[in-house]
Amino acid sequence: MNNHPRSLVNGTPADKISLTDRGIQYGDGVFRTMLVADGQVVDMAAQLDKLYADANRLGIKGISPETLRDDIHKLLDQCQGFSALKIILTRGNSNRGYVYDPKADATRIVSIFELSDVPNSYWTKGVDLFVCTTRLGKNAALSGIKHLNRLEQVLARNEFGNEFQEGLMLDTDNQVISGTMSNIYFVSNGSITTPSLELSGVRGFMLDKIQTCAGESGLSLNTGHIHLQQIDAAEEVFVSNSLIGIWPVRSIGQKQWRRGPLTSKLQHLIQHPRIPENT
Amino acid sequence: MNNHPRSLVNGTPADKISLTDRGIQYGDGVFRTMLVADGQVVDMAAQLDKLYADANRLGIKGISPETLRDDIHKLLDQCQGFSALKIILTRGNSNRGYVYDPKADATRIVSIFELSDVPNSYWTKGVDLFVCTTRLGKNAALSGIKHLNRLEQVLARNEFGNEFQEGLMLDTDNQVISGTMSNIYFVSNGSITTPSLELSGVRGFMLDKIQTCAGESGLSLNTGHIHLQQIDAAEEVFVSNSLIGIWPVRSIGQKQWRRGPLTSKLQHLIQHPRIPENT
Repeated sequence: MNNHPRSLVNGTPADKISLTDRGIQYGDGVFRTMLVADGQVVDMAAQLDKLYADANRLGIKGISPETLRDDIHKLLDQCQGFSALKIILTRGNSNRGYVYDPKADATRIVSIFELSDVPNSYWTKGVDLFVCTTRLGKNAALSGIKHLNRLEQVLARNEFGNEFQEGLMLDTDNQVISGTMSNIYFVSNGSITTPSLELSGVRGFMLDKIQTCAGESGLSLNTGHIHLQQIDAAEEVFVSNSLIGIWPVRSIGQKQWRRGPLTSKLQHLIQHPRIPENT
Repeated sequence: MNNHPRSLVNGTPADKISLTDRGIQYGDGVFRTMLVADGQVVDMAAQLDKLYADANRLGIKGISPETLRDDIHKLLDQCQGFSALKIILTRGNSNRGYVYDPKADATRIVSIFELSDVPNSYWTKGVDLFVCTTRLGKNAALSGIKHLNRLEQVLARNEFGNEFQEGLMLDTDNQVISGTMSNIYFVSNGSITTPSLELSGVRGFMLDKIQTCAGESGLSLNTGHIHLQQIDAAEEVFVSNSLIGIWPVRSIGQKQWRRGPLTSKLQHLIQHPRIPENT
């Protein structure tokens, strides 16, 4: 596989999309990025359910799960090792203007990307988080959805360089919400808290998975409001997304942590194929 | 000219854009829509200045004003009557992920669209506004910019059908901000107030033009915070954008207005080619 993504647009090999697509005109669509391990999409059914749920919240119609699965299988054939599968569903084509045809079919863009190698230490020793200046606006109508309006994440991610592996994002009231590409968790007194996503942020698939795994093991995962000043009190901090599983957080600003026992336990419980064995 | 938009991507006739463009991946770009009257872009220099200022706020680089003007002139050749010129500038292409190359050149998409006929009464008697449920989130980093993250406007516009000509949008604190595709103004005791756009909304070109025309004629245009409950006290209400100039507002919910003297005066002062004569 070369460095160029291989993509299907509505089932046909393509490297372009129509200018009348509402994805390019307005960011009018949703997406999910999934891990592919040796030709299999990890947790595909549950990932697709989240994609469809997001599309449904925005009223994006005309998605055939069977057709989308066919697209995915066409691209998987040549995959070896780890890859990223990205699926974008837009609201399809329309004339100029915000009005859409409620009966229009979604456009589906399915792409495979190579994953670059990541040091094992990101999973064992953890990663360093930059505290971003760019804030997340609050809007209950859009929060939680992995939609294509991602300028806040773009601006935040580009505040820091490669000396940090992730950026911490706060909302406009300085409440901690997430990483730029991950959800975040704070461990204190044996319980795990992740920020409320009722008004900001993206609810990643891995958050659901961690919640399920924690529950099955008798661990409590709570949702709460966390101010930047409160994070110093955490005993362990970690971030998650579908491509990395769980990374312990080693530092945020001056504050430092080591990977703790609950982080290790969850890394084991989620059975993520990229997490190095015997960590 | 047929119903299909005619477009140039980076100067070349095209009806598609690369899937690796950050416009489709993240809504990572800005746009402006301008009126073309008999082959001339109305207020082109000032419109382009606003486009460049928005691109600059997002750190989008590699825009050559001369090249963009060449694109525009290539498309204008065949224009008769009124058309809409839409220019999108994205942050260009990148690999998967929010990180961008700060040296990457913008992608420029220049398109011409037909304008549908609009009844003269929209300018003389006014238009009816639906009060949208979808709210505008607040974020100083993005407010005012005409960027490609427009899901809030998409959801708001599709709450109502053709019985309304525009929708009124409030922010998450129920402050009045704008129409879905226009700025809004309230006249009271001889002075004009338009909502503050410091935290939400798009600053349209026509707002600047109205401000200039008002100032030159000794009218005062103020920026303020306007709660939905305060609009009943307005003596005149109007909306503006580059394609329509100024439309009086005839109703918002149960409250009704007639076109008032300040609205008429500003309609005259802005010298917009689509506003019917002798109105």
